[in-house]
Amino acid sequence: MSEKSGIVFVGSKMPMDYVLAIITGLSASNAKEITLKARGQAITTAVDAAEITRNRFLKDLKVSKIAIGTEEMPPREGETRSRMVSTIEIKLTRE
Amino acid sequence: MSEKSGIVFVGSKMPMDYVLAIITGLSASNAKEITLKARGQAITTAVDAAEITRNRFLKDLKVSKIAIGTEEMPPREGETRSRMVSTIEIKLTRE
Repeated sequence: MSEKSGIVFVGSKMPMDYVLAIITGLSASNAKEITLKARGQAITTAVDAAEITRNRFLKDLKVSKIAIGTEEMPPREGETRSRMVSTIEIKLTRE
Repeated sequence: MSEKSGIVFVGSKMPMDYVLAIITGLSASNAKEITLKARGQAITTAVDAAEITRNRFLKDLKVSKIAIGTEEMPPREGETRSRMVSTIEIKLTRE
């Protein structure tokens, strides 16, 4: 979970870990928006984190944009074909 | 996987099963749009199905709307608290 210029990369931790990253990311920089990025199974975690943050903690946060896409990942060890992985970007904006 | 008036409910099957549902749903009714609905872990499957359909089969299909939300599910047997589950809706539109 890293934060760089308003981006939170969502991986395999619990949704609450990313909720915390969103909240601290927004308050530290006093930024108006933050973007969650995730791929593969972490897509569900990203949606969970966005929903928990909006419903429980920052009720003035709005989902301003959602985009989905596909990324090519290098083949795993022992495999020869690269894999296609779905991605999501969720932008949250403070009113 | 059921289809009702342009809606494909995405569950725990493989993404390709829903890709097929999207393609047949669009061609059978000659409809211009179809909406994928999923919750919990199936959110990733819904994104996969939308991306595979767009990239491999129906290249004129556009993602016209994505919405996320939260639904309250009744408690599991032996539990007393209801659970909150994230949801996604992906609307695909043919040009």
